[in-house]
Amino acid sequence: MSENAKNRAEEIVARCKVLAAFSEAAGSTCRTFLSAPMRDCHREITKWLRAAGAEVTIDAAGNLRGLYSAVQSGASRLLIGSHLDTVPNAGAYDGVLGVLLAVSLLESLNYRRLPFAIEVVGFSEEEGVRFGLPFIGGRALVGTLDADLLSRLDPNGISVRSAIENFGLNPAEIPLAVVSEDALAYLEFHIEQGPVLESLRLPLAAVEAIAAQTRIEFTFVGHANHAGTTPMHLRRDAVAAAAEWIVAVERAALHEPGLVANVGQIEARPGATNVIAAETRVTLDVRHKSSDIRDRAARALAQTAIEISGRRGLFLRQNVLLNQSAVEMDTFLVDQIEQAIHATGSRPHRMASGAGHDAMILAEKIPSAMIFLRSPGGISHDPAESVEIEDVAKALDCGLHLLDQLAKSSEFQKRMCRA
Amino acid sequence: MSENAKNRAEEIVARCKVLAAFSEAAGSTCRTFLSAPMRDCHREITKWLRAAGAEVTIDAAGNLRGLYSAVQSGASRLLIGSHLDTVPNAGAYDGVLGVLLAVSLLESLNYRRLPFAIEVVGFSEEEGVRFGLPFIGGRALVGTLDADLLSRLDPNGISVRSAIENFGLNPAEIPLAVVSEDALAYLEFHIEQGPVLESLRLPLAAVEAIAAQTRIEFTFVGHANHAGTTPMHLRRDAVAAAAEWIVAVERAALHEPGLVANVGQIEARPGATNVIAAETRVTLDVRHKSSDIRDRAARALAQTAIEISGRRGLFLRQNVLLNQSAVEMDTFLVDQIEQAIHATGSRPHRMASGAGHDAMILAEKIPSAMIFLRSPGGISHDPAESVEIEDVAKALDCGLHLLDQLAKSSEFQKRMCRA
Repeated sequence: MSENAKNRAEEIVARCKVLAAFSEAAGSTCRTFLSAPMRDCHREITKWLRAAGAEVTIDAAGNLRGLYSAVQSGASRLLIGSHLDTVPNAGAYDGVLGVLLAVSLLESLNYRRLPFAIEVVGFSEEEGVRFGLPFIGGRALVGTLDADLLSRLDPNGISVRSAIENFGLNPAEIPLAVVSEDALAYLEFHIEQGPVLESLRLPLAAVEAIAAQTRIEFTFVGHANHAGTTPMHLRRDAVAAAAEWIVAVERAALHEPGLVANVGQIEARPGATNVIAAETRVTLDVRHKSSDIRDRAARALAQTAIEISGRRGLFLRQNVLLNQSAVEMDTFLVDQIEQAIHATGSRPHRMASGAGHDAMILAEKIPSAMIFLRSPGGISHDPAESVEIEDVAKALDCGLHLLDQLAKSSEFQKRMCRA
Repeated sequence: MSENAKNRAEEIVARCKVLAAFSEAAGSTCRTFLSAPMRDCHREITKWLRAAGAEVTIDAAGNLRGLYSAVQSGASRLLIGSHLDTVPNAGAYDGVLGVLLAVSLLESLNYRRLPFAIEVVGFSEEEGVRFGLPFIGGRALVGTLDADLLSRLDPNGISVRSAIENFGLNPAEIPLAVVSEDALAYLEFHIEQGPVLESLRLPLAAVEAIAAQTRIEFTFVGHANHAGTTPMHLRRDAVAAAAEWIVAVERAALHEPGLVANVGQIEARPGATNVIAAETRVTLDVRHKSSDIRDRAARALAQTAIEISGRRGLFLRQNVLLNQSAVEMDTFLVDQIEQAIHATGSRPHRMASGAGHDAMILAEKIPSAMIFLRSPGGISHDPAESVEIEDVAKALDCGLHLLDQLAKSSEFQKRMCRA
């Protein structure tokens, strides 16, 4: 790694820490959609972007957008970005690191212009904390931030629309935030938020898909009874049924490569030590990079729950909470990312993202791809979230290789002409 | 069944319903230790007992005591009773039925005197609702209602001692409530509160032991992580570990005759659909009529929890909440009860009580035994709790046979001389 790349990486991490201090909560990081500290965030990033030669605006959905022009005016543009909002009690890197890597890429270009413009995007909202619905920023760019969503209320009864107005923006201008025909592609750097790269001892990965995700709530309904007076064979125990099913969920996920399944909530009623549970509610979260495999798995697990309930004399209630298809990343971009990772001296690795990201939304409209950085300990959404300076330097290096590759690529040239 | 027995049984059930209306809660039955409706209860029962020829007092622990004298003054006494308090949202028969069967036995004697006196006891407290600790009434009779217990507070900050004073009783007289040397034995009629007799199509059973009971809280401690980004083999999932263990708990109880084990509470933290559980707390309630078998089972299940935790990279916290030995009922009395059940024309059945009862406390001081009545549907601690009129008539008939047997028994004669 060059001394220069390392210095820039250290600066990126230092800036992440500066932004982490802009928080709604004292002593921890929490920065939701268009909250007051978001303004501090915008101010700092704007300063850095302007110094790097970009023009900065805040669009009507609160996204920060920094345009670094191309060699020629009227050229099409490459979007690079991530989100600026955080979960409560957040770390310093989820989202923000991707924005600051994009800023640092512009700085590294040192006013050198490319055949395409670069638009750095700091999305206003991805986590879904304030309004219980994620991707407000990304939706604005693809034109799906509709009236329903604008009317949604936060816990204080403030709508998305009012939040935008209160921040000094004009909701009527939201259509102007939509990316135009000159948008070539969207790239996003993001921490992995999982342990895969660490376990492979690799700094970077090309994300080939964002996993399909299903969330279902199951309630096993049995019969409450006295735990001391009811013989085992006469019980209709909702906890025992749920436990048998959870064991089957884990087994199924272990046997299907790439499948993950989680039971994160479990609740027994009436919930007394000496009473056999009448009802047990559990949630299933099942994901795979293939929607088909995810669907098959979710159906099989529901069938297993029905079978277990039937055999035990219980019945089963089901409630689908979420059913989101897999989103494929652009194969051309994924290939280019692999090549760029290789050029940094690391072994390229392809993986699916188990979590949702802005790239998932942008992919509805423009070719999109992501680069994951290793997450030490797989820790995210926690103050202990971290990155290795060396990995950040690698990511920056990978980004610069990628820009050069795209600038020279005949395929990307063709896209630029079509745009 | 004689018409007379059936009429008396109907009267007993009608009286249970009268007492069920004396409640702290509108529209449901709830009558805790020395609450206002307990006074109404005392008034009604006192009226019935006096009419049957008994002298009634309320002891300093709030127990109603009705003495039906023997042929000769100074004779020793047989105690027959159960409790007058209830759980919240109770049925009409748990406890109360046993007291009213005793009242009806006196009425059936029709002023005929036996070689021993009969003391009907309506215990003031057995359920542990108001002070979180059961058997306040029974403890007074065996002399274990100590200063610690008297200082215990209810949720309104009122001590047992104050509750006694507020009811117009004198805590200083509690030692006078202790049964004296002339107490021969304690008998208790009680609904089974379980499905065993119903499944055997039998009206009555002789209780040979009250099960040993252990309650342990286990906490499986793993590691929280993102449910989408953490591959299955890298998880330390506290819900999956707990589920594997619950399956093992059920299997172990099914394989050990007479063992019952229940996991009635389960709680996962942080408890989010998309987060792998870091901690899962479960409670184990394990019972057997043999303290040894119960101990062995509890130890083996704790060992299984440790083994599962270790194999999965979790650790385990344990907290013993209760460890209560089995209480054997008096074999002479159990034999006599079996004989009396046989005399009513039913097949005698012996069983252990999975639930605790006043007889468990009384057995510390005097020979004790219980007669269970079939519980339709095994339902108890619920407004749907019921009894069959025929079964109540059988219980009354059984009680009368038992009194006659005891009056004629040389063994009981000897006990009377010793007392």
